Amino acid sequence: MKTVGLINPGAMGSSVGAAARQAGARVLWASEGRSPVTTERAERSGLEDCQTLQNLVESSDIILSVCPPHSATEVAGDVAALGFSGIYVEANAIAPGETRKIETMITRRGARLVDGGIIGGPAWKAEYGTQLYLSGEDASIIAGIFEDTNLNASVISANIGAASALKMTFAAYTKGTTALLLAILAVAQSEGVRTHLEKQWGEKFTEQTHQRLTANTVKAWRFEGEMQEIAATFDTAGLPPGFHEAAAQVFAGLAKFKDQDEIPNIEDVIAALIQPPL
Amino acid sequence: MKTVGLINPGAMGSSVGAAARQAGARVLWASEGRSPVTTERAERSGLEDCQTLQNLVESSDIILSVCPPHSATEVAGDVAALGFSGIYVEANAIAPGETRKIETMITRRGARLVDGGIIGGPAWKAEYGTQLYLSGEDASIIAGIFEDTNLNASVISANIGAASALKMTFAAYTKGTTALLLAILAVAQSEGVRTHLEKQWGEKFTEQTHQRLTANTVKAWRFEGEMQEIAATFDTAGLPPGFHEAAAQVFAGLAKFKDQDEIPNIEDVIAALIQPPL
Repeated sequence: MKTVGLINPGAMGSSVGAAARQAGARVLWASEGRSPVTTERAERSGLEDCQTLQNLVESSDIILSVCPPHSATEVAGDVAALGFSGIYVEANAIAPGETRKIETMITRRGARLVDGGIIGGPAWKAEYGTQLYLSGEDASIIAGIFEDTNLNASVISANIGAASALKMTFAAYTKGTTALLLAILAVAQSEGVRTHLEKQWGEKFTEQTHQRLTANTVKAWRFEGEMQEIAATFDTAGLPPGFHEAAAQVFAGLAKFKDQDEIPNIEDVIAALIQPPL
Repeated sequence: MKTVGLINPGAMGSSVGAAARQAGARVLWASEGRSPVTTERAERSGLEDCQTLQNLVESSDIILSVCPPHSATEVAGDVAALGFSGIYVEANAIAPGETRKIETMITRRGARLVDGGIIGGPAWKAEYGTQLYLSGEDASIIAGIFEDTNLNASVISANIGAASALKMTFAAYTKGTTALLLAILAVAQSEGVRTHLEKQWGEKFTEQTHQRLTANTVKAWRFEGEMQEIAATFDTAGLPPGFHEAAAQVFAGLAKFKDQDEIPNIEDVIAALIQPPL
């Protein structure tokens, strides 16, 4: 069996690591500099602590990078600098152009890159339907690792960038409309017509919208970077980046709700978007 | 009964004129400089041709402006210049700030302004549920004209700008997401992942999306101005205008499909967004 190095066991990453273990892989992680919360999550997922990134690079056949989009390039750079020569799976929510830049960086010392895009929530159960889309020449090796696990892995293309593009275009709608609805409610509120707008929307849509917006507010801080990656993806394809530049701005306005224990109420969320932070 | 002057009997306007007639009003329109298609529509709706805008202004107690957003200010300026002194209903898809500017223009000679926002398709049947939202001191006079007609008129506020804001925030989602989905499919297509994206979306959402996008393509030419009005509305409220600036750009890319008899197929629509016009 292969040894897999996981960077990092966050909410999503730890479930990916657990899925690899489910299929019989040895899964390493490096605890150096990580928080107690992450350590607890890694232990619960049955991951093996190899302490440092250097140990992880030396012992792994495959490295999976699952981290916030703004860290993707730095993580890949660190791994490349430590001389990794196995298969590097770039599974983050970044633009296809960024993935291709990371490919250049990672292959310089003989490593190979597989592009990955994860769609769905953490893969704790098969019925959650979490997808890991893979592309690149070595994609089927990675798909093999997750066969019959809670993570649905599938190869979509031999091209690096395809898996990233799929992730970007999917999130472009889901997170893009979340940001749009947040902005719309803030505009309606400041123009004094929110009640009328919600009446025109109808009870069902209004309730679903409130639930969706408040549930996403505590995660908004990490959506800003993803929105910028989507904007870059649109720009490269010759389509306007403005939708997701605006979405990034909206999510940035909700950063203060980061990781709050309780889901905020819709009034506080809207107020945060109207009143500029002091 | 009041005499109502209608500017102009377009697809929406003619149904609004017909609704006013339904309630017993005399409805005038001015054929000067208008197309045979418009003339036919006006006749079918039972509107009375008074030939010129000057006659319309002189004979009407109330003027209803229902035109594309980019013409709203010019139409109001013409009516003001002809010395109109009745009630002017500004029912176009324009930013509340624009409506307030038009109010200044129209009230200079003693006319009064009522703000209106139409949501829904042409009001040919009551069950279509087309809404005319009204705001301003004289809004109830206008609501009275449409009582028990196929157009649902309701007063939402005494403030000029409220009806416009309601129209803007409602269309911000419906037309905004239409533009977003158009752009997403174009990006997915040019990155070679459209099939995979549509598989992830599922058959139902994909089919609904194709239908919605192709049906809107022939109307896209007149959405560009509306998107710019929504962008201005967001900007005034301190929210990012980028969503709808991008939407305006997307719709502008589909202007060549203007008023085509047949609904285009989705492949042609996507191709139009990817290949820059020669």
